[in-house]
Amino acid sequence: MKISILTLFPEMFDAVLNQSILKRARDKGLYDIEIINIRDFSKDKYHHVDDTPYGGGAGMLLQIEPIDLALQSVRSDNSFVLLTSPKAKPFNQLKAREYANKEHIVIICGHYEGFDARVETLVDDRLSIGDFILTGGELAAMVVVDSVVRLLNDAISKDSLDVESFDNNLLEYPQYTKPPVYKGMKVPDVLLSGHHKNIQRYRLKEALKDTLRYRSDLLKNHEFTKEEIELLKEIRDELKNTK
Amino acid sequence: MKISILTLFPEMFDAVLNQSILKRARDKGLYDIEIINIRDFSKDKYHHVDDTPYGGGAGMLLQIEPIDLALQSVRSDNSFVLLTSPKAKPFNQLKAREYANKEHIVIICGHYEGFDARVETLVDDRLSIGDFILTGGELAAMVVVDSVVRLLNDAISKDSLDVESFDNNLLEYPQYTKPPVYKGMKVPDVLLSGHHKNIQRYRLKEALKDTLRYRSDLLKNHEFTKEEIELLKEIRDELKNTK
Repeated sequence: MKISILTLFPEMFDAVLNQSILKRARDKGLYDIEIINIRDFSKDKYHHVDDTPYGGGAGMLLQIEPIDLALQSVRSDNSFVLLTSPKAKPFNQLKAREYANKEHIVIICGHYEGFDARVETLVDDRLSIGDFILTGGELAAMVVVDSVVRLLNDAISKDSLDVESFDNNLLEYPQYTKPPVYKGMKVPDVLLSGHHKNIQRYRLKEALKDTLRYRSDLLKNHEFTKEEIELLKEIRDELKNTK
Repeated sequence: MKISILTLFPEMFDAVLNQSILKRARDKGLYDIEIINIRDFSKDKYHHVDDTPYGGGAGMLLQIEPIDLALQSVRSDNSFVLLTSPKAKPFNQLKAREYANKEHIVIICGHYEGFDARVETLVDDRLSIGDFILTGGELAAMVVVDSVVRLLNDAISKDSLDVESFDNNLLEYPQYTKPPVYKGMKVPDVLLSGHHKNIQRYRLKEALKDTLRYRSDLLKNHEFTKEEIELLKEIRDELKNTK
């Protein structure tokens, strides 16, 4: 897989791309990434890439031409081109899996004051990571790179990928490590029991409880097993008794 | 305002904190940030901070003690402590505004394989930026820093903050800059007309159209003005005529 990032701030990516998992995946040849400076494609002698908006208004807009030229320099038939923009349903784990199967992803990082609307005609899809405003699209691009690369085969161990939040619309169960008691807070006895079936049941129940409490919206897309339905009854009874 | 980040990967923050707006805001004294390495608070002679989960399972979990000690080193009565975790409603612009009014924000960056559940007892709230899995909490922390700092008075111009996506539950209207024609794509005539009232009306209509098309979910929290209701009728009539 190849990823190309088109940005005005290429140096922002240095530290993140050198962090452990992303670097290891690159060293293993699982993906390749190139960071392209849009400014290199300006035909203006001062390398300007923005100008004032037609019709008035605050700020400067990124112009279409340098973006179009930068895109032409990396695009091929197998490229999937994303533009960071609030005009999109927020990115999620399903999209991460979809992107992880692409041959070549290109991400154009928007500028905090906006870009010429005609840029949208150049892209395959828009990318938003949530309903908040960032100074540029760079962090959104990093989020996509991080979440996609970790899904590439071997980037992290298969076991770690198996039990994860969001994938089956349940939050992950709470976990504990040493010490067994910290400032009076104890690790639940069942986890120290060595009884695998009880541990599995405890974990599933806690995952259901946490999801009910914090992200009940995820459950509408969850397919409940028979065991989970039993556990939900137990949880309901416990809640009744504590009232 | 002060921000403290507790992380195992402090160097990941270098480039992002040195980007234009975040750096300028710091130079102006609008905020101060410190990046704390959790590993510095390990009492283990090899500086280990993680261990295997009780009850079995893949991966290594961050232990509570080094996190607790790192937190104690920065926490005061005015600190608001966040822990990156999927157990939270995703961060949004309203939260950014809320956090921008805090005196001291502390963000504990989670580890991709998880942390001891008792860490949750140490914090004031959890932080998630969306329903996707990242290798660590660092990018989530950067997103919060970026979106919060840009709201601090003077970090960017007041005019740019006034017309923005999400704040009033409408997407921003499309904007255009030079050239007036690019590869046959023209800037809409009204924007070149100099007629302010028509431009304002055109922009509002396009903002409504884009929101209807891409993010109709935002409209349920939008308070419509009389002018917007008129424009919605126009849009509906246009859609009828194109069928």
